[in-house]
Amino acid sequence: MLSTDTLLKEFRKGNPLALARLLTRVENRKPDIPSLLDELYPSTGKAWRIGFTGPPGAGKSTIVNRMVQEYRRKDHQVGVVAFDPTSPFTGGSLLGDRVRMATISLDPGVFIRSMATRGNLGGLAVGVDEACDLMDAFGKRRILIETVGVGQSELEVAHSADTTIVVLVPQSGDAIQAMKAGLMEIADIFVMNKCDREDADRAYRELISVLGMKHPDDGWQPQVIKTIAETGDGIEKLVETVRDHRKFLGDNEKLEQRRKKRVAEKTKRLVEDTFNSRFWQGKREERRLKGLDGAHSPYELAEKLVEDFYREIRDEKTG
Amino acid sequence: MLSTDTLLKEFRKGNPLALARLLTRVENRKPDIPSLLDELYPSTGKAWRIGFTGPPGAGKSTIVNRMVQEYRRKDHQVGVVAFDPTSPFTGGSLLGDRVRMATISLDPGVFIRSMATRGNLGGLAVGVDEACDLMDAFGKRRILIETVGVGQSELEVAHSADTTIVVLVPQSGDAIQAMKAGLMEIADIFVMNKCDREDADRAYRELISVLGMKHPDDGWQPQVIKTIAETGDGIEKLVETVRDHRKFLGDNEKLEQRRKKRVAEKTKRLVEDTFNSRFWQGKREERRLKGLDGAHSPYELAEKLVEDFYREIRDEKTG
Repeated sequence: MLSTDTLLKEFRKGNPLALARLLTRVENRKPDIPSLLDELYPSTGKAWRIGFTGPPGAGKSTIVNRMVQEYRRKDHQVGVVAFDPTSPFTGGSLLGDRVRMATISLDPGVFIRSMATRGNLGGLAVGVDEACDLMDAFGKRRILIETVGVGQSELEVAHSADTTIVVLVPQSGDAIQAMKAGLMEIADIFVMNKCDREDADRAYRELISVLGMKHPDDGWQPQVIKTIAETGDGIEKLVETVRDHRKFLGDNEKLEQRRKKRVAEKTKRLVEDTFNSRFWQGKREERRLKGLDGAHSPYELAEKLVEDFYREIRDEKTG
Repeated sequence: MLSTDTLLKEFRKGNPLALARLLTRVENRKPDIPSLLDELYPSTGKAWRIGFTGPPGAGKSTIVNRMVQEYRRKDHQVGVVAFDPTSPFTGGSLLGDRVRMATISLDPGVFIRSMATRGNLGGLAVGVDEACDLMDAFGKRRILIETVGVGQSELEVAHSADTTIVVLVPQSGDAIQAMKAGLMEIADIFVMNKCDREDADRAYRELISVLGMKHPDDGWQPQVIKTIAETGDGIEKLVETVRDHRKFLGDNEKLEQRRKKRVAEKTKRLVEDTFNSRFWQGKREERRLKGLDGAHSPYELAEKLVEDFYREIRDEKTG
């Protein structure tokens, strides 16, 4: 196995294979990754991170694909992080979208990475922020994050993105469902895709009216963009709107605020990871998996395990 | 405020107001709740917990409502835990379902509790297991858990339920979407609701064929039940199928296995709660919210905060 130092050297030379290897190490949670990311951290912050969410089947992959093409036309270096195991980005498409995908995946200006979802239960992948940090430090200037659109990933992506795009299809009631789902609170931009459908106008008006109920807490009024991703209609407008949002955040000191919040979230997650990997090992993990094992209830078991952990920490001092 | 002891006495007498108060204390994470739940734990385990998930708008609330009526006809004591802020169960219905709801909510044999979702971002509520434990100890024999059908709740409910029901509507592609969403892995029973729709047969066949791809890992082959919740069609069959599943798990020692797994999950969550509430307070929480605050990166900040925590634990010994 190549040493992290060697990989880092190659990474800094711009070797995409080094980026790929480091991403694998992030996913496998190799112990030297945090210090590596710590080192690269000052090189991050230049990329714009765009998260895509919304129900499965809304056309997220196709829109991401189109936006990548648009950004490439503007000569931006692009990164894509995809989670959907059946997305064309991962190569395992159920949708027959792979041929078109090939055109962007052969472009050296685009780096595509598919990641596994945590426990296959719709959670966001381990290390999406870290993957974005790596791509950012590598020199990618637009990073598109495509979620599977279910489970926790649907909303968590907003923590990792500078601009969050919620993709919907014109279907009656969808706007209200999106509101119920909490998507209204995270969307900077809505895309109403498949706008060649019959009900498109009505669904569009419905969404606008639901949005009217929202009072933007940071001064940005979420925009609604109509697209037909299949033909590319509306994609240019979408790219412009992302630019407007970026400009808005930059001009209003909101960006600093958002990124500070992201650091706070990330710190919390990192601490939890550190804690969990130390806590749940050896005897404690065995006891947990055994079930109650003499304890009266999970409440008592949890308390005992925490005491055991504190004892371990204390013994370190004298040990 | 009433003391927990007084509430517990009333709870044991079967006073539903005491149950309601204790549920509120669970949601507010009152410090004496874990020991109370520890005490009540031996009285739990008699209820059958049925989780409902699936996309918003599939008709989960209506099905839950119908099943409650069916169980009441069989004279079971029933509990309902609902998370959807717009569900008729919570009283804030957008769907105009409140009148029908009233018939079950006035029945003393039914206890309905709506809970807030964590951070309003689709996460499962704090304390769903605890709420079920309380209802179980109170004497409820069927507990129905209705999720909002998005975010983490969609899949997390399987951790709390003995039988997990995924509700779909006959819409082309929905079965494949459900597979992508990880719902196939958690469903013990599928309900194909709104089966009076035109495409119902085709969607039903599609689901059956997707299910054919699944190899059940515990020997139970997920069943598909057609319903029209509005009229009650298929609900009796659904109740029978839940009974079959219960019988299957009981006869095959699978139930013990499932519940052991649940205890293990719950223990983990309890430990995390304990840890988080101790870790993220005072100076550490302040430092986290300040952003990097002199640290080089979130990776470094997290490390420093963990060190600070361990120091605190160690100092306790000498202090």
